[in-house]
Formats: sequence, C-alpha cells, structure tokens
Amino acid sequence: MCRFLAYCGSPILIDTLLVAPRSSLIAQARAAREAPTPVNGDGCGIGWYGERPEPGLYRNVLPAWGDANLASLCHQVRSRLFFAHVRAATSGEVAGVNCHPFASGHHLFMHNGQIGGYQLLRRRIDALIPDALYPERKGTTDSEAIFLAALGQGLREDAPAAMERTLGAIWGEMARMGATEPLRFAAAHSDGKRLFAYRWASDGHPPSLYWRVIDEGFVVASEPCGEMLEAWNMVPSGTVLTIEASGAARLAPFTVERPAAKAGQAAA
Amino acid sequence: MCRFLAYCGSPILIDTLLVAPRSSLIAQARAAREAPTPVNGDGCGIGWYGERPEPGLYRNVLPAWGDANLASLCHQVRSRLFFAHVRAATSGEVAGVNCHPFASGHHLFMHNGQIGGYQLLRRRIDALIPDALYPERKGTTDSEAIFLAALGQGLREDAPAAMERTLGAIWGEMARMGATEPLRFAAAHSDGKRLFAYRWASDGHPPSLYWRVIDEGFVVASEPCGEMLEAWNMVPSGTVLTIEASGAARLAPFTVERPAAKAGQAAA
Amino acid sequence: MCRFLAYCGSPILIDTLLVAPRSSLIAQARAAREAPTPVNGDGCGIGWYGERPEPGLYRNVLPAWGDANLASLCHQVRSRLFFAHVRAATSGEVAGVNCHPFASGHHLFMHNGQIGGYQLLRRRIDALIPDALYPERKGTTDSEAIFLAALGQGLREDAPAAMERTLGAIWGEMARMGATEPLRFAAAHSDGKRLFAYRWASDGHPPSLYWRVIDEGFVVASEPCGEMLEAWNMVPSGTVLTIEASGAARLAPFTVERPAAKAGQAAA
Amino acid sequence: MCRFLAYCGSPILIDTLLVAPRSSLIAQARAAREAPTPVNGDGCGIGWYGERPEPGLYRNVLPAWGDANLASLCHQVRSRLFFAHVRAATSGEVAGVNCHPFASGHHLFMHNGQIGGYQLLRRRIDALIPDALYPERKGTTDSEAIFLAALGQGLREDAPAAMERTLGAIWGEMARMGATEPLRFAAAHSDGKRLFAYRWASDGHPPSLYWRVIDEGFVVASEPCGEMLEAWNMVPSGTVLTIEASGAARLAPFTVERPAAKAGQAAA
Repeated sequence: MCRFLAYCGSPILIDTLLVAPRSSLIAQARAAREAPTPVNGDGCGIGWYGERPEPGLYRNVLPAWGDANLASLCHQVRSRLFFAHVRAATSGEVAGVNCHPFASGHHLFMHNGQIGGYQLLRRRIDALIPDALYPERKGTTDSEAIFLAALGQGLREDAPAAMERTLGAIWGEMARMGATEPLRFAAAHSDGKRLFAYRWASDGHPPSLYWRVIDEGFVVASEPCGEMLEAWNMVPSGTVLTIEASGAARLAPFTVERPAAKAGQAAA
Repeated sequence: MCRFLAYCGSPILIDTLLVAPRSSLIAQARAAREAPTPVNGDGCGIGWYGERPEPGLYRNVLPAWGDANLASLCHQVRSRLFFAHVRAATSGEVAGVNCHPFASGHHLFMHNGQIGGYQLLRRRIDALIPDALYPERKGTTDSEAIFLAALGQGLREDAPAAMERTLGAIWGEMARMGATEPLRFAAAHSDGKRLFAYRWASDGHPPSLYWRVIDEGFVVASEPCGEMLEAWNMVPSGTVLTIEASGAARLAPFTVERPAAKAGQAAA
Repeated sequence: MCRFLAYCGSPILIDTLLVAPRSSLIAQARAAREAPTPVNGDGCGIGWYGERPEPGLYRNVLPAWGDANLASLCHQVRSRLFFAHVRAATSGEVAGVNCHPFASGHHLFMHNGQIGGYQLLRRRIDALIPDALYPERKGTTDSEAIFLAALGQGLREDAPAAMERTLGAIWGEMARMGATEPLRFAAAHSDGKRLFAYRWASDGHPPSLYWRVIDEGFVVASEPCGEMLEAWNMVPSGTVLTIEASGAARLAPFTVERPAAKAGQAAA
Repeated sequence: MCRFLAYCGSPILIDTLLVAPRSSLIAQARAAREAPTPVNGDGCGIGWYGERPEPGLYRNVLPAWGDANLASLCHQVRSRLFFAHVRAATSGEVAGVNCHPFASGHHLFMHNGQIGGYQLLRRRIDALIPDALYPERKGTTDSEAIFLAALGQGLREDAPAAMERTLGAIWGEMARMGATEPLRFAAAHSDGKRLFAYRWASDGHPPSLYWRVIDEGFVVASEPCGEMLEAWNMVPSGTVLTIEASGAARLAPFTVERPAAKAGQAAA
C-alpha cells in the first residue's frame, strides 16, 4: 500500500502541499496512519504539468524523507496540476521504473492498491497492453500495466469508461486464473486538464481516498494531511471524482462488471 | 553493445581477472576497443558460485569504474565460476533490474547483442516466457527475456539445444513482424557446473567473443584483456563453447533454424 | 539512532543472523523497538573479514529491506567476523559514503549515537583527524570522524584507551563550544581479530547494546533479535566488551575523562 | 576534469542548450573533445534560478546520458540563469553530495580543475572554511571547499576579489605543503543575478573555457557546443567574465598573489 496526493487548481508551489503541512505526504512516508504498511520507503515520485503538454516526471528509489532532489524540486516548481506518490512495494522490485507516477504522452497516472494474485497473472495482464503501447512498459508493477491497458481501452477519450473496462478485463483474468485475493484500486489520472480520482474494489473494500477544497483548488489524497483534518471528505467506494479545468467537480458512480458472464463463456 | 567476462576453473579471487589486468573489463567499461559503443557506463554486475547451489548476484546502475561496492566485492570473493558484465544500454532503461547477469535458481546468464526490432516485438517476446517463470521477469531487457524463454525451452536439460530453439522462436517472431535488423547473440550461461559460451547472429555478424586458457582455468570475454593478447582465441561464429566442471572444453556448431517455414505458414 | 549487529566466532553465513531470525536486523530497519526513531531507512551496510587482512565492505543508500544486493551478499558470504548496520540519519546526508560500517586498512567501525551539537562542532572534530588519515574521510558523519580520530589516537595499538582519549577530546571540544546535548556512543570496532563493543554516554544514557552467546560464537546488537530474547545480556553503561579471536570475552570499565580540567584551561 | 555550461539571459527551457544542440553537454559527457578524460560519467547536476531567491538543485551519480530525471527536468524547467555540470571524478567519491553545482543560500558554484596535492592538503583546505559555513560542507571535493572558503572570504560582497583571495590562500597552503601539481581553476559562480566565469591556473594552463552570445543571452561552457562553433570565444587565461542581469558583460583581469611572501613568512 502506498500513499499519494494530487492537486488541481491555481498554480501553487508543490511544497505548499507536500512538505509544509503537518502530517504531509513526506511525513506519511515514514508514518502513515491509514495504511496496512506504515512505512512507505520504497521510492517516491512527482509528476507535474507546466508549459509543455506532457508532464514533468521525477522518480527515485530513495525514501521521500531523505531525497534532497525531491525536496529542492518541490521547493521550486509551481504547477496547476501535480501528482506525488510514496511507495511501499507490493509488486515489482524497488527500482525507479517501478515508482509512481507513470507518464505516457499527456497522461499521468498513479495508484494505490493491488491486483490479487498478480505474480501468477502478470503475463496475462501484460497481454492486455496493446503492441503499440508496449514499448512504454518500463517496469513490472501492476499499476503501470493497468495504466497502459487503460490507454489501450480508450483512456484518452472517455477515461472513467475505459478504466471500468480495464478493471473488468483484469477481474476477468483473475477469475479465470482463480485468484483469491481482491482487486483494489485507489488511483488518480490526468490528461493534463482534468483530474480523475477513482475508488473501487472487487470486494467492496478499496484503499482510503479523500478530497478537500483549499483556497487555490482541489486536493485528493490517500489520507488527510494539513491542519483542518475535518475538512476532508472521503471519496465513496465505487465512485469516480472528476475535477474539470474550470474547477467544477463531480462525483459519479464507478461500476466494474463482475466477470461472472466471462466465467460462463470460459465454461461454455 | 556491452562487454563481459566469464571464468571457470580453480577458485580465484575475482579481481585477479576483473580489475588487475591491463585492459581489464573495468577498464573496458570506459574504453572498449572492439565495440560500436566504446563507453559501457550504464550499469554493471557480477554473478558468482560459492557454497550455495544458486549464484550470488550484485548489480548496480553505476559505471563499473566508480562503483566502490563492486571493487570491494571483487577484492574479497573467491569463486570457481563467475560472470561479470558492463552495460551499454540498447533496450531497457538504466536500472539495476536491467543489469546483467540474470539469475534464476541455479542458473546464470549474460548477453551482448540484440533482438532486431525489439521495441515492437517486446510483447511477443515476453509471450515466449512461460507463466511459471514470468514472476522472475524483473526488468525489460531483451536479454532477460531470452534467458527466461530459454529456461522454458529446456535450458536446464540440454542448454545448447534449448538456446537454439529459443533463438529460432525469436527469429520467427522477428520475421512475422518484418523486423529488418538482425538477431545478434554473444552470451554466457551456467548451471553452476558447466559454462556455455555462445556466438551466433542471424546475419552472420555476431558480436566478438574470445576465450583463453590461463593457469587456473578458462576465461571467456567480449574482447581480450590482460598481458598476452595473442593467447586469446576467437569463438567462431555459429559455435557454442562448453567447459565442463572437469575442465574439458569443446567447441560445437550452434545452428538456429531459419524461420522460412514459419514465414510460409504465415503466408498460407 | 541506528541499529547494528556484529558477530565473532566460527565462520557462518551472514544471513543466518541478519535475515533469518525473527526480529532480525533487517526487520528492525523497518520497525525497531528500542530506538527513538523506529524506521532506519537511510541506508545500510555490511563489513566482513574473509581471506584478506582488510575487510570487505558493502554500503548503500537504499533501506535494507529493499536492497536485493544486500540480500544476495548475506546469502552467499561466510565470515568469522562481520558487522551490519541500518541507518537513521542524524548527521550527514543520505549517501553511500555516510553509511556504516567504515573501514580503514584492517579496521572496521560502526556506531550508534551522536556528538551533541555536531553541526557547529564539525570543523573542530575534523581537526582531530591527523593529516595522514584525512584522505580517508569520505563522508561527513560524526561516526566516521570518531573512527579516524581514534585511529590517530592509537586505535591500532590499544583500542579501548585510544577510544577513551578520542571521546575525551571530543567531549572537550563540546564543552569549549558550549554544546548542550550529550555525547552518546554505542559502537563496534574490529582489527580483524578482536571485536570491541563500547557503551558509554556523557550523560549516563548511552544507546542500548546487547550481547549473547550462540553455538558458533558471540553476537553484539543494538537490540535483541532471534528466538530466545531472554538469552541476551545488556552491555552495562560505561563498559567495553572485548571478544578475542580465541573466543575469550571480557567486560571492562570504559571511562572518559570529564573535560572540566580542559574547560579550566580555556578559562585560564 | 569535468564539463560544464552556464546560461544567463531571457528565460529559456534548459533543454534548448543542454540536450538539443549537436555536441551538447550531455553528448560531451560521453565524448568530450577538449578534456584529458573524454568520459564524464561520474555524476551530473543542474542548478537553476526560478521564483525563489535560492536556486533549485538536482544532482545525481548516474551518467547524464542515462538519467531520465535529468532529461525530464531539462525538458520542463524554464530559467533565466542556470548551471549544468557533468563530472569526471578527480577528488571525492562518486556520490550525489560530490556532484556540482553546489548551492549555499542564493549562491551557486561549479568548477572544473583541481587543487594540486589535494589529498594531502584536504584538512588544511577544510580549515579555510569558517565554522558558520562548515555545516554546509556535504561532500569531500576540492570544488565545494573552494566555494565555501570563498563565501568566507566575502564572495557575497565582491566576488572576484574574494575568489582571488581564496585561491591565494589555497596556493599558499600548497606551497607550505610542497605540492608539486598546479592549482587549476575554470569555474562559474552566481549570486542569482550576475554570472561570473573564471579561468586561471597557477602554472598558466587553466582548463578551457568559452563564451558566446546567442539570441536570448550569454552562454559559458567548457567547450563549444551547438552549430556555429566559430561563434565561441575563449575566456583568456587569468580573466574573469562578468555578466550583469542587465545583459552587460565585461572581461577583467583575475590575478592571484603568488605565495612567495607567505613561504618567506613560514621560513622566518
């Protein structure tokens, strides 16, 4: 389980949210409160949108609390839309290529959760990535595979629908292979304009995910940070939160089709 | 293109071969003579057999010449069979998981060469790795994929035959996808007892590979190093050199079936 | 505060003590029980004596729990005398050169503790290192400075006396500069034959340090690990434990002269 | 010997100068033409001024050509004044803390050259750094020591004069210790507004240093890069080039007092 934070709004210096607040993401790396693994020391990363259509990306294997480059970057970079992530490795080695966020073209993605039985399913999950996107597979995490598979399912056009289809396909593979652990998914995705935050799990117990409004815009995070902890709202299970570039936000149902039908096909 | 060295014989300290000689592998990392890329600074690694049936493994992204851990290890470790590799990245990011050698159970593998058109072929090459071995896929190089696919083809039982079948299957995928660049392969493999050194290319121009006898045993290397450069023999193209634990060595033809028949199938 | 372990006895594989036991050092890296900072994720290292008079050294900035090279080394290397350390940075950046243990010639050293007011005292502490040893100063920790200063004070001849003099000189500098925090020192040192374990603090509250006998020899550690927690003995405050190559062990007083006299000199 | 580049002018994206040009600094890292060591693979770094008075800093031990974070940063960050450096280690381990540029408060510094006999002089050079600045000593290079010593000599007030005094003091220590190798100094320094570029050596053979005007401002570099190689001017030996925030540039003599008198003092 990892911890992450995403911001969308007026441009702010990244350390405003990431370093300064009490119980900031960087503090959570050493002592998360709402995670099964309190230490998230297996790498960290930030992605941000600036002048270019594609995001900037910094990822490193060091724990966030000891990474001088990360601290300097957060202190310097002002952005209207950024992601930050601290990792507790569940699948994939401790390696820069396995750190979040992941970028492809204009798109940015990060994830907290897991594909149940991933080690046995890996080749089948990889097979959900189209040939044209496969060269972008740099690491071996389930998270990067979900992102690339979702791009293949139309993430650029209709993000929530593509994500529903992708998780449906993965759940299907899990069912076919008899995976006993659930598919759990708290994630953030951006096309450089909108921010999508997802919370869903095949067993109804997704990782925690919160959002709140601050003066400058919206923050989404694995767990509350900063002063006013009561100002945070939980993203309900089975929900996608969409924040438009205009600042409009809406919650909508996020529904993944149970792979029963597919199991039936397999039985046929 | 990378540079590598393998040793098999009486136990010796690794730095005897790797650090001390004139034009040693570590010197070659900075200035190789027989390679298209003279600088091999994209990571390094050693694998060695000691008391355990499985080899020890040290791999790092730093250039070999600046890696204090590598120097200390080579200075301390005595081994009867070891591999060393300096990398110039052709496929796969600069990452520890993409450094050679690769280990699986008792087996050790390293490679210099390339799969032509690998970026487009990657998913198909990955599909040659059996499900049971896929969890061992830690990185994204063509080299690691060849190794795991060969394990699936029976590398543990009849190594040269399994390697011929593996390269045949890969050549077949290349033909099906219309790859225009060749498949080139200079590699070393060990099961912990025997050392196999391969030199072959689909276009008849494999990377260089040499061997020589020293007092203590056999050395195989991408290019000659040490004092007596004339003592080195080239491994002929289309040949596998096998060195038995007993010290017996033999050269045998290494033949990969041209994918013409398969192309015919595809045409049918 | 860091965690460490040292072993001296019949040669054993390092992972016997470091990885396998319940609450092993590597487990302590993520969740120490007797340390002010439960996470020791700012690097790790091992030093070991083999065939060479000088020790082998492996140090890295990654947390011990995610370091594949460390795991492989511990799995392969058999040693009669080894040190292992996981770091929680108090002075000095997160960098390989600041990881313990430190080596100089035949000597190995690691430390848990601190020099009170070190940031203001650094130049004066560095000045305690003789010119001839200064080139070996690779990093910026107080621990490495103590080691090099002690070598200058005769650590090679009479280790405990040299260490007493060194800590006395440091305490003197602290007094001269008006440092308000204490000097705390739990440390291990070896000349390749004997193992010295020190526990002392200027305020009488040194970091914890334990020792026990196992079948193969002696273990010294920051906190008990393994099964029989009751088999561990605390090294008393103000004591040095010496383990001879013969297996003989003795506890002796370790007394550092209070810098009152020196303060008087300064006042004069 | 290292390679570096500094820019001062209208804000531009860093990769305009660092990545895109033929024979760019990143290409020079692998194959410098005017350096004794053609490979500069022992780390890299950039420093840049943005909205904050203090510069941003990114430094890493990887060779510049394989560092994905560096590439992304250079692609995203727009700056009116930035430094970039690729290192070939002469003094100090391969470590992030030994990579250039170095920052202190608003000031940024990078260096190509050496203090002759530095390994024997290190403690004396360190002693030139005032206590108040010593906590900023993060690594062990001669370059960082020159920078901190120069801050102690008044670099913030009159940069060229402070640098002359600092090099004079170092030359004096070299003379006292009988160093036989020269003091060579090509360096860039900024206070966030002005850019100073120095070229001087005790033996009259300083490392190469060039400058040119481009549409947007001034570039200073160890060796010419980009298309119009004839547009580059060499900074004469014994000269400091100052570029004001206004865009005014001037060359002035840079004279370091020969330590003969001091040697006489020592003899007296």
